[in-house]
Amino acid sequence: MSLNPVVALLGRRLRLAVIGGGPGSFIGAMHRHAAALDNRYELVAAAVSSDPAKSAEGGRELGLPADRAYASGPALFAGERGRADGAEVVAIMTPNDSHWALAAGLDVICDKPMTNTLDQAERLHAAVAASGKVFCLTHNYTGYPMVRQARAMIEAGELGAIRLVQVEYVQGGNAREFEPSQGRAWRHDPAKGGPSLVMGDIGSHAHNLLRFITGLEVAEVAAEVGSIVPNRTVHDYAGALLRLSNGARGSFWVTQAAAGVENALRIRVSGALGTLEWQQELPQLLSFKPLDGPAQVRTPNGPGTLPLAARASRIKRGHPEGFPEAFANLYSDAAEAIAARRAGTRPDPLALLFPNSLDGLLGVRFVNAVLRSSDANGTWVAIQS
Amino acid sequence: MSLNPVVALLGRRLRLAVIGGGPGSFIGAMHRHAAALDNRYELVAAAVSSDPAKSAEGGRELGLPADRAYASGPALFAGERGRADGAEVVAIMTPNDSHWALAAGLDVICDKPMTNTLDQAERLHAAVAASGKVFCLTHNYTGYPMVRQARAMIEAGELGAIRLVQVEYVQGGNAREFEPSQGRAWRHDPAKGGPSLVMGDIGSHAHNLLRFITGLEVAEVAAEVGSIVPNRTVHDYAGALLRLSNGARGSFWVTQAAAGVENALRIRVSGALGTLEWQQELPQLLSFKPLDGPAQVRTPNGPGTLPLAARASRIKRGHPEGFPEAFANLYSDAAEAIAARRAGTRPDPLALLFPNSLDGLLGVRFVNAVLRSSDANGTWVAIQS
Amino acid sequence: MSLNPVVALLGRRLRLAVIGGGPGSFIGAMHRHAAALDNRYELVAAAVSSDPAKSAEGGRELGLPADRAYASGPALFAGERGRADGAEVVAIMTPNDSHWALAAGLDVICDKPMTNTLDQAERLHAAVAASGKVFCLTHNYTGYPMVRQARAMIEAGELGAIRLVQVEYVQGGNAREFEPSQGRAWRHDPAKGGPSLVMGDIGSHAHNLLRFITGLEVAEVAAEVGSIVPNRTVHDYAGALLRLSNGARGSFWVTQAAAGVENALRIRVSGALGTLEWQQELPQLLSFKPLDGPAQVRTPNGPGTLPLAARASRIKRGHPEGFPEAFANLYSDAAEAIAARRAGTRPDPLALLFPNSLDGLLGVRFVNAVLRSSDANGTWVAIQS
Amino acid sequence: MSLNPVVALLGRRLRLAVIGGGPGSFIGAMHRHAAALDNRYELVAAAVSSDPAKSAEGGRELGLPADRAYASGPALFAGERGRADGAEVVAIMTPNDSHWALAAGLDVICDKPMTNTLDQAERLHAAVAASGKVFCLTHNYTGYPMVRQARAMIEAGELGAIRLVQVEYVQGGNAREFEPSQGRAWRHDPAKGGPSLVMGDIGSHAHNLLRFITGLEVAEVAAEVGSIVPNRTVHDYAGALLRLSNGARGSFWVTQAAAGVENALRIRVSGALGTLEWQQELPQLLSFKPLDGPAQVRTPNGPGTLPLAARASRIKRGHPEGFPEAFANLYSDAAEAIAARRAGTRPDPLALLFPNSLDGLLGVRFVNAVLRSSDANGTWVAIQS
Repeated sequence: MSLNPVVALLGRRLRLAVIGGGPGSFIGAMHRHAAALDNRYELVAAAVSSDPAKSAEGGRELGLPADRAYASGPALFAGERGRADGAEVVAIMTPNDSHWALAAGLDVICDKPMTNTLDQAERLHAAVAASGKVFCLTHNYTGYPMVRQARAMIEAGELGAIRLVQVEYVQGGNAREFEPSQGRAWRHDPAKGGPSLVMGDIGSHAHNLLRFITGLEVAEVAAEVGSIVPNRTVHDYAGALLRLSNGARGSFWVTQAAAGVENALRIRVSGALGTLEWQQELPQLLSFKPLDGPAQVRTPNGPGTLPLAARASRIKRGHPEGFPEAFANLYSDAAEAIAARRAGTRPDPLALLFPNSLDGLLGVRFVNAVLRSSDANGTWVAIQS
Repeated sequence: MSLNPVVALLGRRLRLAVIGGGPGSFIGAMHRHAAALDNRYELVAAAVSSDPAKSAEGGRELGLPADRAYASGPALFAGERGRADGAEVVAIMTPNDSHWALAAGLDVICDKPMTNTLDQAERLHAAVAASGKVFCLTHNYTGYPMVRQARAMIEAGELGAIRLVQVEYVQGGNAREFEPSQGRAWRHDPAKGGPSLVMGDIGSHAHNLLRFITGLEVAEVAAEVGSIVPNRTVHDYAGALLRLSNGARGSFWVTQAAAGVENALRIRVSGALGTLEWQQELPQLLSFKPLDGPAQVRTPNGPGTLPLAARASRIKRGHPEGFPEAFANLYSDAAEAIAARRAGTRPDPLALLFPNSLDGLLGVRFVNAVLRSSDANGTWVAIQS
Repeated sequence: MSLNPVVALLGRRLRLAVIGGGPGSFIGAMHRHAAALDNRYELVAAAVSSDPAKSAEGGRELGLPADRAYASGPALFAGERGRADGAEVVAIMTPNDSHWALAAGLDVICDKPMTNTLDQAERLHAAVAASGKVFCLTHNYTGYPMVRQARAMIEAGELGAIRLVQVEYVQGGNAREFEPSQGRAWRHDPAKGGPSLVMGDIGSHAHNLLRFITGLEVAEVAAEVGSIVPNRTVHDYAGALLRLSNGARGSFWVTQAAAGVENALRIRVSGALGTLEWQQELPQLLSFKPLDGPAQVRTPNGPGTLPLAARASRIKRGHPEGFPEAFANLYSDAAEAIAARRAGTRPDPLALLFPNSLDGLLGVRFVNAVLRSSDANGTWVAIQS
Repeated sequence: MSLNPVVALLGRRLRLAVIGGGPGSFIGAMHRHAAALDNRYELVAAAVSSDPAKSAEGGRELGLPADRAYASGPALFAGERGRADGAEVVAIMTPNDSHWALAAGLDVICDKPMTNTLDQAERLHAAVAASGKVFCLTHNYTGYPMVRQARAMIEAGELGAIRLVQVEYVQGGNAREFEPSQGRAWRHDPAKGGPSLVMGDIGSHAHNLLRFITGLEVAEVAAEVGSIVPNRTVHDYAGALLRLSNGARGSFWVTQAAAGVENALRIRVSGALGTLEWQQELPQLLSFKPLDGPAQVRTPNGPGTLPLAARASRIKRGHPEGFPEAFANLYSDAAEAIAARRAGTRPDPLALLFPNSLDGLLGVRFVNAVLRSSDANGTWVAIQS
């Protein structure tokens, strides 16, 4: 583990604001932990609710002074802009605020999905490109050491040409025969939750994981998406066949209606020289089956660990890290990129693989293509990349 | 374990002939072992090769008298018909001989694929129906105790209504960049090996396993099939989205080009009340994740074992059985059915689940539909059932 | 799989008699299946019960003529001796009959424990040595392909000098708070079941497995043995520290009182160059963790398979075999040795590793030493080897 | 996850000093991360090295002002005592400083081993008791959610009376045939590293884990400890048979010389009603095999999670946490206890299970007993508790 090179570089931590993800939210807590883990950020401002009283209460619980607990993104941007010690980076858990954050001159860490519509995504990506700011989209599963090891092995040619990919993300959270609770009802409203619940929630993760590990794009899909639990309007499953940018073939399967399953994100990638398999529920293991040799089980910092994976682990062999550390890797990579830009230095190239607005745009295009193929009776639909 | 109820019933073993599967062949040895395991058959005749010298030599190695080592199926049928101690059942490892076997009045155990063409399959199924004979198609993976436990749990309603199914069969045997060896070149010739190597070899197993466990039919497919290894003409992968007869949805993925993978047949079935998962490489384990309770790992003869599974195991808890025993279960079930018909008694209903000519016909229709959807740019194709 | 080289060699199968293991018994069925699997034996005579009616009935169920269903071992030996087609080999599931079998000039396959007392074991081993006959003791776990792979890897030096061994055998069959059923009451009677139930039943397996895999002897033990389930007199657990013949150290733990556990025989062996782990409940996997390289999972006939393991498997990679095949390997190895002796030829050296009377004697000495150390307050006790 | 109840209670974080565990050390980083994770501590002072230049440099890297980077524990205690904002709690990674910390009126978090000698341990425990301060010994494996679930299930009677325990801790870090590097040479010096390297390093963890989960004491041991790697003087393995305070029996095996093994701490506990198994390398899984029901796999926050385990997890089902979170649980529990005492309120009883000075004392007594039994030829030695 490198001890805070960014802090050493900057002489200080980056000042972070958060929008959304109030005290009771799982994802808000994950973001704050991720920011704190390597001590590269200090939380200076927040707008955790659009209800002023809740926002003020949330600010207090986060240890913020009263004048830095805001009731909206715009209020936060306005308030922080005027301060010498104003926020430099903002972590956004509410769609639609990203554009304003960039306009306010802030670097952005954004929870997925990046936007609800393709048009929004195109415009946001253009805005990021024009701004020169860092935009980190928290497809957090790419932060696991063994996911990075898989990518690095493929980049190094250890699998040869990629031929076949299977990715699946199976959950049981929406298996019961009723709609989710009121507090999260927006997730089941296409207008607020995006055009497809299952694709926005987990399909985009699966798509991003496939691209991150293989370094390939999804060029075409033949797909179906729909609802399998009775009396439900929102999507709870999607399947697709894939043609990748190098001609490889693949399958894709996601659902939140698999009763009893927890969080079974799994990927298998075969190349000419072997096959890799990884599953999120046992993230410390990476199966590698070479064409010519015994099957292997790779572990963080075990023999054969490549630099990209070694950098993603803070701990000795045999001591498992988990989801919080994977998530934190995205935050710390973004901090490296932001701090280097502010310092006018070259960042560690290994830090620059966090998902960005292009990844977000490609994710939205993928969702869009899946929906179009599903509407077109399963015919193949091309995806721009 | 029941000790040979059939033998007790008959007072003797069934007289078995084999066609194909000569001494050097893997599948031939498997069939002979499967027939021998429960002592319900005695091998009395064989035609293991179309080369008379090889056939004679093979007969000697199998311990047969010279006059019962034939050089072809028709010769065998003719020779055995004239004997008082002639074969009653024939195990066929060569497509096209089944029809003649039925015509010769024999019960048939047939290796898959049942036929190479849909037309042949329709006619064979009709011939079986007309004959009143037993026709057992050796989709051997249905013989595993935990596969039968999965079926029995679903039949008993332990999963509730089935909603989602994933089945995949991934092998690495054809991952290298050359065509298989000469001796098996016929497998890469569509005229002899069927219209699709990967579908005939393993796709039909995956399809059958899904049907056996769920009790549902595949009603529609959207599919692609093709070759991913460079410079290859025969199919080495196929993927499909599935719509099942009750409206459930599913995914299907098979390949023989996944370098380093052995024999990874895997299925996951979710119903309203829970999810089952099974994989052939660890066949002694069946994962059951109920909607409302801790995840379970079921094992042969462990608590909760249902009669269909108990019947499929010969051994105490904790002593794994394997592929040979699974294969033998089909042979012994067929023996039960044959012996009961000959004796004019009612067979054990739990013995009657071995795959038959209807299963074979549905498998060929499935392959046909996959090919048609693939040719039709992935659009959904309905399957008659 | 080699197809019956012994049959080819002999021109016929060995004539086998069985003593004990009547129709209802698990172990009897296992023995008969093991004998049948490779077609190297034909069952010609039996004495499955000391009750004449039951013995006659058992003979009928096994398909034997009435005059070859005997009511005792001595009767069987006498009856078979006079026949030109008399038994050549006898499989014995009743202690005390082995000596008479040797005296009758038969080769012997004997279920463990070999004898109940150390004195009997010493005399039996001497009798075997004097007779020149084959004596195969069915420590069946040594027949698993991956157990043989482990032994072969150690023999080939792949682990370097052995330093540390852990072996444990944990079952739950005697976890309930009552004594086993009447039919097996003899197992709880030291006079008939040996001096220690748990040591005779499973401790001897664990000891033999350790010796088979490592090629080392247990030189000294510090041990405790006793009863942990309330109100029980027979032993249900035993633990020991081990000093091996090369100075390696080890631990040993066996119990039949672990509620809910099936048949968890497990071994871990560390040498200077790596560590092997194997467990009976997943016998198709052998974990190898080299000192300098990624952890491996070895499978039957996978890359790196050594001849001793390849010979023990009848099937292609990825198709698990089980306990029945492991058991059959001992029978077929014994057949190889017997047939070669009868033919005056050299047997395959890889066939000669089945446990024999010396292994049995060393097992009884180990049990004896464990008991003595336990009685001596845990002090170290040396074992003659 | 509860969001910082301690901070809400106190209105502020506890002021923490650290002694030892400088920037380059693994354990120092783990401690600082653990303290930071739940935001219950702020780091205010440090003495990370006895070299003044290194200590100053370390303080800078930790973001401390120059006057709070001390060159020794005593200097830190003296310097902080005079400040209104002085440290309240000290995290100690150097044996021998604990006593002074208590004398200085600080609460203490102490890395294991607590002391090097039994006499020191007795005196330290007495000092803790007299002080009324919190003393938390970081046997960090007790912080895993599934370890706490195991304890809670046993406390709730789900296993019935405990009968059998196996605990093993197997590592490969000292498998090579040379002594560790100079920087850690003290670990191989009995005077500084304690009487037994392997027992101090990992044996004490295994002993503590057994006690934590079972709630039982180790009453007697029969043991051996020694060196198995050639030309080594320090201990690299230890084995023992155990008699627990309720009459249960057990085995204990620890080594750092198992080539290729990472960090294989494993425990199995059998009671009258079932068996639990847990291993540190897959800490998110807890196997439970009930006497009367299918085997289960319990996961954090899955069905059946008890309050003690739920409290130890910050995250939704299916998102694995790791070693860092387990470690942090001890820090946060200690914070709860310290804050409650300072506030004069009752702490959450579920927070009070962190290992303390009595646990440390019992650990040292256990090591002492193991050594005495080993010296006494393996005879049983009683342990005061």
